[in-house]
Amino acid sequence: MSPYTVSNVQDLRICVVMVGLPARGKSFISQKIVRYLSWLLIKAKCFNVGSYRRETTQQPNADFFDANNKEGLKIRQLAVTNAITDMMDWFNKENGVVAILDATNTTRERRNWVLKLCRQNRIEPMFLESWCDDQDLILRNIAEVKTTSPDYVGVEPEVATKDFLNRIKKYEKIYEPLDETYDQDLTFAKLINIAQQVIANKIQSYLESRIVFYVMNLHIKPRCIYLSRHGESIYNLEKKIGGDSSLSPRGLKYAEKLPELVKQDAGDVDLTVWTSTLIRTQETAQYLPYKQLQWKALDELDAGVCDGMTYEEIEKEFPEDFRARDENKYEYRYRGGESYRDVVIRLEPIIMELERQENILIITHQAVLRCIYAYFMNVPQEESPWVAIPLHTLIKLEPRAYGTKVTLIKADIPAVSTYKEKGTSQVGEDDKSTNIKTRNLLMTSL
Amino acid sequence: MSPYTVSNVQDLRICVVMVGLPARGKSFISQKIVRYLSWLLIKAKCFNVGSYRRETTQQPNADFFDANNKEGLKIRQLAVTNAITDMMDWFNKENGVVAILDATNTTRERRNWVLKLCRQNRIEPMFLESWCDDQDLILRNIAEVKTTSPDYVGVEPEVATKDFLNRIKKYEKIYEPLDETYDQDLTFAKLINIAQQVIANKIQSYLESRIVFYVMNLHIKPRCIYLSRHGESIYNLEKKIGGDSSLSPRGLKYAEKLPELVKQDAGDVDLTVWTSTLIRTQETAQYLPYKQLQWKALDELDAGVCDGMTYEEIEKEFPEDFRARDENKYEYRYRGGESYRDVVIRLEPIIMELERQENILIITHQAVLRCIYAYFMNVPQEESPWVAIPLHTLIKLEPRAYGTKVTLIKADIPAVSTYKEKGTSQVGEDDKSTNIKTRNLLMTSL
Repeated sequence: MSPYTVSNVQDLRICVVMVGLPARGKSFISQKIVRYLSWLLIKAKCFNVGSYRRETTQQPNADFFDANNKEGLKIRQLAVTNAITDMMDWFNKENGVVAILDATNTTRERRNWVLKLCRQNRIEPMFLESWCDDQDLILRNIAEVKTTSPDYVGVEPEVATKDFLNRIKKYEKIYEPLDETYDQDLTFAKLINIAQQVIANKIQSYLESRIVFYVMNLHIKPRCIYLSRHGESIYNLEKKIGGDSSLSPRGLKYAEKLPELVKQDAGDVDLTVWTSTLIRTQETAQYLPYKQLQWKALDELDAGVCDGMTYEEIEKEFPEDFRARDENKYEYRYRGGESYRDVVIRLEPIIMELERQENILIITHQAVLRCIYAYFMNVPQEESPWVAIPLHTLIKLEPRAYGTKVTLIKADIPAVSTYKEKGTSQVGEDDKSTNIKTRNLLMTSL
Repeated sequence: MSPYTVSNVQDLRICVVMVGLPARGKSFISQKIVRYLSWLLIKAKCFNVGSYRRETTQQPNADFFDANNKEGLKIRQLAVTNAITDMMDWFNKENGVVAILDATNTTRERRNWVLKLCRQNRIEPMFLESWCDDQDLILRNIAEVKTTSPDYVGVEPEVATKDFLNRIKKYEKIYEPLDETYDQDLTFAKLINIAQQVIANKIQSYLESRIVFYVMNLHIKPRCIYLSRHGESIYNLEKKIGGDSSLSPRGLKYAEKLPELVKQDAGDVDLTVWTSTLIRTQETAQYLPYKQLQWKALDELDAGVCDGMTYEEIEKEFPEDFRARDENKYEYRYRGGESYRDVVIRLEPIIMELERQENILIITHQAVLRCIYAYFMNVPQEESPWVAIPLHTLIKLEPRAYGTKVTLIKADIPAVSTYKEKGTSQVGEDDKSTNIKTRNLLMTSL
């Protein structure tokens, strides 16, 4: 159960109803919320009305979205009805907790209709509007949509932009933004230029306020997050886990090469480096010409009584623990130490601060990187402790509207593998893998 | 270190500058923030300008606060200067993290002056305005102030009310509320009728957004929180910890008497009962004629491998652990189980939901009650695991503007004592104590 699922009998069900013109980051925000809640083990799903509409109409032009286009209206009404039907099914059959209805919902009439449907089904509606007059932000969003939206696959960029601007105009004609006074009886949050200003009205439950808190921390400026494990350490060579050892000679080589590796990819972009408080991450960061911050919360998963032991020693000394951990690695808590779930809880402020920041390079540890990676890539909880994250590899994450793009940059400096397969205590051969499991290499979308 | 102190080298310092007319709940909010952050082990302190003013002028009448009263202005300027001087000292000498400047700060001139002082001292200013036009709310606040403010000790209620209304008028003449547009370059949060609507502007850091998140969940309606441990259980009689046993015959008697005990104090007030998911709390709640909710997060501190053992057995089998726990009970984590700190982290959603609610009766366990009690009564972290919370006793908490009032209501049904003094493994004699340690009986104020 999630640490945030405060009750197992309270059947709170929330529908986050997105509101806003096209190109205001609604889909981005929707997907972020789903990923964040899922990471915290709260059952969440996004219902994107555009996807339902694409089942019948793949690449409509702007006229399709005209409020006077009867055929268009009919198809769009069918799409939203289908989305809501599926959403209700999901709540009822799969015990969903938070659904996001990702659509423009630009008119009061439409919003009232959704409101009524929610109330009839004992679902709390919370409207979440993304209102924007920052032209840079809108243009960046349009650029993003025209390159990533299924509506414009294969369409010339100029044609796509023009059509999309036209589509926005159709919506502007009928748009009724949420109003602090007129809509004061509704539960809503209004984001003005993303999180420049946030108005939260009649937030009813802890979970709703948590969602508002999260979106308050988001921004949608393009940026990169680089992740790296520390260079190979003395303990890695000795096959020991935990501890606070220095880098091995090969680890030091990685530290020396890291500035070049980063610069080749990032160019002159300004970065901030986050490390843990442990020696091996700081030694890895020592040659980087950027501002550096140490975070206690980035320290490696605490192995408790097993700290400093090899997996073989653990298997011998604590055979039951060793098996229990293999069976449920996410939940297993080392004696006097931590579980992956514990790490996720303490990483939450890191994730929140990461959302606030622009370009960041994080140098940390295997288990911690797995958790951060799982958050961005939406890796299911049971798989996240098994993601292979090799040493001496820079991972680049680029958050996009419809997922996160991953690129792996190998340093070409040999290192041991610290990856322990399920059911064995063997690690330590030189790592031959060239990358993270293939499934994780793809751009994820929910 | 706090789970929320995400870095040990980042020297973020925040000054929350309160803004608002008298009787808008500013002191209440200030003290809640301090108590909440302290509970999470974030160093926080409130600097109440009124207290500084009272060093020279104890019971001024409304004319003292007139903007044209030069003598009054001089004294008030000195008070705010002294408060800020002490605040800067606290930041520098005691490594303070969040200070609250609790004053009206009703003019832009005053706010700009504070802003400048903060910036000069590398402190991030965040303005927090309580704006109110809900007359019921204001009148309730006035009633609260006239009975609890040191300014009106010994003054006839009618006289106090009249003078206080007059004082508010003096401030209204010069009040310049924070404005969404005019003040858009400031970091601020504006609470409209407490949390009916919240406007958050340019929130800069995770800690700031966390504070806004917290105040979003507050309300200031008068209410009671009743706390009770479950009735005496079979395990209590057997001196065992943890487990999921049923109530003893005496415990069942307590369950039978509880409805009467509650009714005698609460009258016909509508309550909601929260229990843990464990049998003994649900058996204790079984005769209560109120809506009931079970929370996983209210389950007893998980004693891991020691679950089901007596303290004597733990001392014998795990002597090192036994000693380690006595030495630092707050931090000690049972093998495969939890520490008090772990319980605090998982209780946070409970505390947040509790802040949202009105009258609640919580039936839970010794360690969990200690943590909840510590939050409301501002018990220091190192003392909280040692607070004696006897069985068969209803604890009533009444949050007030200047602290929380505690009343103990004994059921007069004998029960064993489960209190373990430091350095011994003895528990289980019938409990002779009549109440929680005397220091905790008083109304706390920060």
